[in-house]
Amino acid sequence: MENAVGRAGEPIFKRLALIGVGLIGSSISHAARRAGLVGDIVGASPTPGTRKRAEELGLVAKMYAEPADAVRGADLVILCSPVGTYADIAKTIGPHLEKGAIVSDVGSVKSAAVRDIAPHMPQGVHFIAGHPVAGTEQSGPDAGFAELFDGRWCILTPGEDVDKSALAKLQEFWQRLGSEVEIMSPEHHDMVLAITSHVPHLIAYNIVNTAAHLERVTDKEVIKFSAGGFRDFTRIAASDPVMWRDVFLNNKEAVLEMLGRFSEDLTALQRAIRFGDGATLEKLFSEARAIRRGVIHANQDTPQPDFGRRATSDAKAPQR
Amino acid sequence: MENAVGRAGEPIFKRLALIGVGLIGSSISHAARRAGLVGDIVGASPTPGTRKRAEELGLVAKMYAEPADAVRGADLVILCSPVGTYADIAKTIGPHLEKGAIVSDVGSVKSAAVRDIAPHMPQGVHFIAGHPVAGTEQSGPDAGFAELFDGRWCILTPGEDVDKSALAKLQEFWQRLGSEVEIMSPEHHDMVLAITSHVPHLIAYNIVNTAAHLERVTDKEVIKFSAGGFRDFTRIAASDPVMWRDVFLNNKEAVLEMLGRFSEDLTALQRAIRFGDGATLEKLFSEARAIRRGVIHANQDTPQPDFGRRATSDAKAPQR
Ligand SMILES: NC(=O)c1ccc[n+]([C@@H]2O[C@H](COP(=O)([O-])OP(=O)(O)OC[C@H]3O[C@@H](n4cnc5c(N)ncnc54)[C@H](OP(=O)(O)O)[C@@H]3O)[C@@H](O)[C@H]2O)c1
Ligand SMILES: NC(=O)c1ccc[n+]([C@@H]2O[C@H](COP(=O)([O-])OP(=O)(O)OC[C@H]3O[C@@H](n4cnc5c(N)ncnc54)[C@H](OP(=O)(O)O)[C@@H]3O)[C@@H](O)[C@H]2O)c1
Repeated sequence: MENAVGRAGEPIFKRLALIGVGLIGSSISHAARRAGLVGDIVGASPTPGTRKRAEELGLVAKMYAEPADAVRGADLVILCSPVGTYADIAKTIGPHLEKGAIVSDVGSVKSAAVRDIAPHMPQGVHFIAGHPVAGTEQSGPDAGFAELFDGRWCILTPGEDVDKSALAKLQEFWQRLGSEVEIMSPEHHDMVLAITSHVPHLIAYNIVNTAAHLERVTDKEVIKFSAGGFRDFTRIAASDPVMWRDVFLNNKEAVLEMLGRFSEDLTALQRAIRFGDGATLEKLFSEARAIRRGVIHANQDTPQPDFGRRATSDAKAPQR
Repeated sequence: MENAVGRAGEPIFKRLALIGVGLIGSSISHAARRAGLVGDIVGASPTPGTRKRAEELGLVAKMYAEPADAVRGADLVILCSPVGTYADIAKTIGPHLEKGAIVSDVGSVKSAAVRDIAPHMPQGVHFIAGHPVAGTEQSGPDAGFAELFDGRWCILTPGEDVDKSALAKLQEFWQRLGSEVEIMSPEHHDMVLAITSHVPHLIAYNIVNTAAHLERVTDKEVIKFSAGGFRDFTRIAASDPVMWRDVFLNNKEAVLEMLGRFSEDLTALQRAIRFGDGATLEKLFSEARAIRRGVIHANQDTPQPDFGRRATSDAKAPQR
């Protein structure tokens, strides 16, 4: 399939309403404007400061305090807030949605999104849950940028009875934002993302907290000598705590299943270390390289050493 | 202390012998030449291809198959090979070392380095173990670059009876390579690095292998959707298997102790997820942010979102 990155074209929606304008919402705004995808954009968020900033940045023509006010007249509504807010938002916007509108979301879990949103969708509105697999550790309206979705995958998890032309339209929308689109069930999504995103975040949070609470190594030492690998984990662990709380509360089974496997495998590695079994260690370490090669071949990461960080980390003397 | 990054000056050693010219050895060569630190550089490594390449790249004036041949006439010898090779190398070079020479290493573990090297050092030779806390996931003579040590810490772990002027000279050497120098005991080094480097690598290797052996999620899916966090772990897990095998075989106690703490803490997180304890999750996730801020403040990582990777990961359509 041809990739449509950055190709400006005809708008396919007259009005886009973004419920939440943080990292993902603001990036959608940047990328949709880059591609000329929508007539205009409005938004909603609870905090006055966020609303002011989103208008200042030109992310939206107008921000509303109430999601119900933002969705009026919108033919595309995307929930871009933490997953734990979905049920309330869906309930309040339901009665105000335009007939024929498409409602979607970007939440990192999908079964719970469907559970919380679908029941509140009126007849004639097309609900199709989605998740762009792209992000950074930053949040808020200033964090977004147009290129976030370029070359990344967006997963859509439509129900069986989905309107084919609504699905095609949403698919085109994400492609013109820069993504490739994959379709799967919400349950399978949650299993895949548990291992590729949720458990990685959990163990990153965990090791950072373990390091912060040692008696024999100070926080200052942990920070000073973090370039040996630890600093990579601190980046992921700087992600928004509320967003991630909601992910773990809403993808419990899949996360616990993957965590069980992780712990089992870690126990085996631990035993190999305890018994000095170098052959097992070397074998397991060697196998892990194949996956890295796959990630790079699939253009899902830069092949540059150290993420190309070399150029950006400057040669200043470290602060003691 | 003034930082001496990139400042060319008088040589402080007449001949540097590098035993091993992989990522670290070749980076020392680049940085030492940048700073005009040494008269000339020779090297040793077992593989003919590596020796040829190191000469082609101009990393050394001459490569030798035998470490004993490389150390003749050298007033600074640095072991830059996997830690498991140290005992044999120390034994074979011992009788050939110049009186007054400084012998050091760059190994990621220090108690074992001292255990394996010190007994073979003749009288009048100054042995001071060291570890530059800097690296990438790549290896071999082509992987090195002059900036690797800029703004990073190099830890030296001299014995109690160290010659003060030899220590000062080695300290100046590392500073002019671009590093700050910290002095501590080998035992404390191994504890600090267990949490800031060894356990992070172990859990990265582990989650990559867990992901590769699932029945319900294919390797292809793991790779495609790796941008949700997993790809960061694949980078670390692409590091050299032999080097890391030797690290775990030679820092067993500290790694097992830190791994025990990690697993305890992970169990607590797992319980919070199982029982839907959002307050505990949010609290633990929030705390992790402070350490990230510390790492950035100490100039041990770039403040740019996503390691600044945005600029380097290009917008090509991903390979299916
Ligand atoms: N970050 C990632 O890497 C990533 C990647 C893919 C998907 N996601 C998903 O994207 C969604 C948003 O994440 P993000 O990273 O963009 O978060 P973010 O930067 O923290 O932004 C969250 C936005 O949601 C708004 N919001 C919070 N409560 C709300 C409510 N009750 N009603 C309406 N708006 C509300 C916030 O507004 P105020 O500022 O006014 O509170 C803010 O604008 C989450 O569901 C997350 O799972 C995130
Ligand atoms: N990679 C990192 O991030 C990092 C960071 C700090 C410290 N260190 C430490 O630095 C050391 C080297 O790591 P590296 O990343 O530079 O590894 P590397 O790129 O794999 O290079 C290893 C070098 O050691 C040589 N070598 C292997 N066995 C040898 C022997 N018996 N005698 C002499 N030379 C031998 C290899 O030569 P052939 O190619 O001829 O086999 C190669 O030149 C290790 O002790 C490691 O713990 C690594």
